[in-house]
Amino acid sequence: MPEVSDAVRRDLKTVVGAAGIFTDPADLEAHLVDERRAFRGVAPVLLKPASTDEVVAIVQICADAGVGIVPQGGRTGLCGGTVPVTGGGEVLVSLERLRRIRELDAQGFTMTCEAGCILQTLQHEAESADRLFPLSLAAEGSCTIGGNLSTNAGGINVLRYGMARSLTLGLEVVLPDGTLWDDLGALRKDNRGYDLKQLFIGAEGTLGIITAATMELFPRPRDVDTAFLAVADPEAALQLFAVAREVAADMMVAFELNDRNALDMVFQHMDGVRDPFPTRYSWYVLLELTAGVDGHARAAGEQILAAAFQRGLVLDGVRADSLAHRAGLWRLRETVTEAQKHEGRSLKHDISVPVVAVPQFIDEATAAVRRGWPGYRVLAFGHVGDGNIHFNVFGPPGNDGEQLFAESEAIEDAVFAIADRMQGSFSAEHGIGQLKRRALRQYAPAGSLEMMKALKRTLDPQGIMNPGKVV
Amino acid sequence: MPEVSDAVRRDLKTVVGAAGIFTDPADLEAHLVDERRAFRGVAPVLLKPASTDEVVAIVQICADAGVGIVPQGGRTGLCGGTVPVTGGGEVLVSLERLRRIRELDAQGFTMTCEAGCILQTLQHEAESADRLFPLSLAAEGSCTIGGNLSTNAGGINVLRYGMARSLTLGLEVVLPDGTLWDDLGALRKDNRGYDLKQLFIGAEGTLGIITAATMELFPRPRDVDTAFLAVADPEAALQLFAVAREVAADMMVAFELNDRNALDMVFQHMDGVRDPFPTRYSWYVLLELTAGVDGHARAAGEQILAAAFQRGLVLDGVRADSLAHRAGLWRLRETVTEAQKHEGRSLKHDISVPVVAVPQFIDEATAAVRRGWPGYRVLAFGHVGDGNIHFNVFGPPGNDGEQLFAESEAIEDAVFAIADRMQGSFSAEHGIGQLKRRALRQYAPAGSLEMMKALKRTLDPQGIMNPGKVV
Repeated sequence: MPEVSDAVRRDLKTVVGAAGIFTDPADLEAHLVDERRAFRGVAPVLLKPASTDEVVAIVQICADAGVGIVPQGGRTGLCGGTVPVTGGGEVLVSLERLRRIRELDAQGFTMTCEAGCILQTLQHEAESADRLFPLSLAAEGSCTIGGNLSTNAGGINVLRYGMARSLTLGLEVVLPDGTLWDDLGALRKDNRGYDLKQLFIGAEGTLGIITAATMELFPRPRDVDTAFLAVADPEAALQLFAVAREVAADMMVAFELNDRNALDMVFQHMDGVRDPFPTRYSWYVLLELTAGVDGHARAAGEQILAAAFQRGLVLDGVRADSLAHRAGLWRLRETVTEAQKHEGRSLKHDISVPVVAVPQFIDEATAAVRRGWPGYRVLAFGHVGDGNIHFNVFGPPGNDGEQLFAESEAIEDAVFAIADRMQGSFSAEHGIGQLKRRALRQYAPAGSLEMMKALKRTLDPQGIMNPGKVV
Repeated sequence: MPEVSDAVRRDLKTVVGAAGIFTDPADLEAHLVDERRAFRGVAPVLLKPASTDEVVAIVQICADAGVGIVPQGGRTGLCGGTVPVTGGGEVLVSLERLRRIRELDAQGFTMTCEAGCILQTLQHEAESADRLFPLSLAAEGSCTIGGNLSTNAGGINVLRYGMARSLTLGLEVVLPDGTLWDDLGALRKDNRGYDLKQLFIGAEGTLGIITAATMELFPRPRDVDTAFLAVADPEAALQLFAVAREVAADMMVAFELNDRNALDMVFQHMDGVRDPFPTRYSWYVLLELTAGVDGHARAAGEQILAAAFQRGLVLDGVRADSLAHRAGLWRLRETVTEAQKHEGRSLKHDISVPVVAVPQFIDEATAAVRRGWPGYRVLAFGHVGDGNIHFNVFGPPGNDGEQLFAESEAIEDAVFAIADRMQGSFSAEHGIGQLKRRALRQYAPAGSLEMMKALKRTLDPQGIMNPGKVV
């Protein structure tokens, strides 16, 4: 891939102006590493276009010159998808200045927003219009909708509302040849041939740059019931899930599992948290129901707890009796990722298996780590209702991470092989980036990688879009 | 495209056996026309493979010989997608013998079924396991899940459960080169690279043959509230929809609109139906709510009706007080398609627009037809909650359809142009087939057709999969 020539640089500067181009290493620094500081790259220039038209012009210049492009959103991904890999030949294109909400149609329950909008901003804007935008995840304060779509983000409300893909009604994409593809319609049903937008969702910027999207909004819940429950083990959690789904059906929006290790890290490193129970338990469930009619969620919550206690599935439990209480319970779940950072480096495995196989997966993977790496610590938490377990591994206390990372491939193989045997996935919601390309080669369904490469060659024959990522 | 040679015929017979190959015109007849008898084709041979392995072998033989393949399900599509077009060179492959439910996992809320399973059978099987498979449409007694997926079918529950695409967790597909691609996993979250299954859903068999799928199941509703309501016009219906969504949120599964013409046809041609009201009204809404907790749907239904009557949005209404009553109300909506057949031939337009634009679309399109074709009759009904209107046009009474069909392109252009101006779609749920290729060329977003063709060339370079359809 050719270097960025002076001529190309001049052309790019003409497009974005002096306010949109950065070459000072101090300005680039934050754009060359990932949030976990697991990856670092080099790049000669960072662009911050202010409009879709500028993105179009940038891609045209790069396509003409055969120069690679690394699109960037909030850069909170966990797989190094926004960190350049090819050693200095690529242009960084941050979408952060494309942050206009072009339209919020409360009556039609849709919102058209630009790629650089912060997820939390979109949640708040929807709320201001008495609507719900349900995509929600730990990084929501800094991740962008463009990144959410490019990674098909999941999070805590997938159980009821699906992943980013299923919330997307329309997309605006700058294709690798610099043409603009505008399919921003706000249609609930549209079978005009192949559903092309699906290609770009979850493609991590390797097939084009998403510049705007039309997203679906929902009625705001009028009633919420949040419970934090202690259970004996993941099997009890699974049985509790069955009881809850039986009663609450569509009212259940979150069913999250934490092990005690996760809670210990939260208590040790985070402020404003306290154990809701006088006793230590091994596993915890955060259950949330919402409803459009006042009282419905709470009524269902009572039914669920009554049935669960009766069957001995729950050892102890608290239900939120105020908004502040609810926020406190969620903090026990939502700060796990942050707390882990204070504990030192870890290997993150983002596994999904069929929902009924969750307990077996946790058992087998934990046993495999204990057997192969005595003294290493396991932390399992996640979205049990989606079959999604974040299975993280820490070195022994005091370990600086070097030894852990030296073992990373072996530990990955042990964990991924167990998931694979259960027809599971080694990447439930985090994507591939540069971190999981090896796993993709090994564990994708037969023929998938070849098809992905064929699609990549078709849509990006020069290979300039986010080189070295995914395929 | 080469003819089917004797050698190819022999090879195909070896694969499917004497019980799986048909060449007698009497056996082929039903497979050469569409249900509406709007299209007719010719083909020398019909195959009914009994397994995925046989489909693989068939496609390999055809790929080697460059022979075209037309996959067929229940053949209930409305766009001629299963009728051969190229004049005798193609093999018909009916999936009707692939009708095994490979697994129904009630605890995991998934079902893996073969392409030839009848939709209604799948609904019943799910019900037997105390689960809901929500895909539901008028042709459910004869359409197959393979066809539903190949056309990304919609129907009456899209509002709450989405189209066929969003119910699909995994697919098994025979690719155009005869290799089997198996991604039948039952995962709720899976971000292992590009989501390839999305390509085959809605591709109408032009990129491969879907042989099996893993579909999502849901809790069975414990409470249902169904109301049939008379409203003044589509604008009142839209306001009623807003009220209903505000109260019922996720409990609303159907919000269907019928005009009086549709109802008159039902009363004239169908048995076992009666007008629920003593007075004629111009427009009707069928509203259905479901809930997992007994009483919740009915409580919400009462709130909605109270608010709607108070605001003068509803002129009259009945609520189902028994299962039989509910079935009777649904019959008023579900037999519209059947009743139309008795009324003579019609032009069917399957439009979607943003939900808030539904009344304006109906007004403008009706006016355009009245203006351009005096005496022609309009029938508008559909899934208002999804912005999806079936806008059908009949000739004057007694017209035999010849004149109507001679005007079809001009009427289409008038109707589609209005939808297009509203950022709508000329194909909300029916697909493209052979009927709407002209419209696709004219009304697809700029660049879409080129991208679709590039994908087609990449995955099916010989162009043997359902030739002459979609792209």
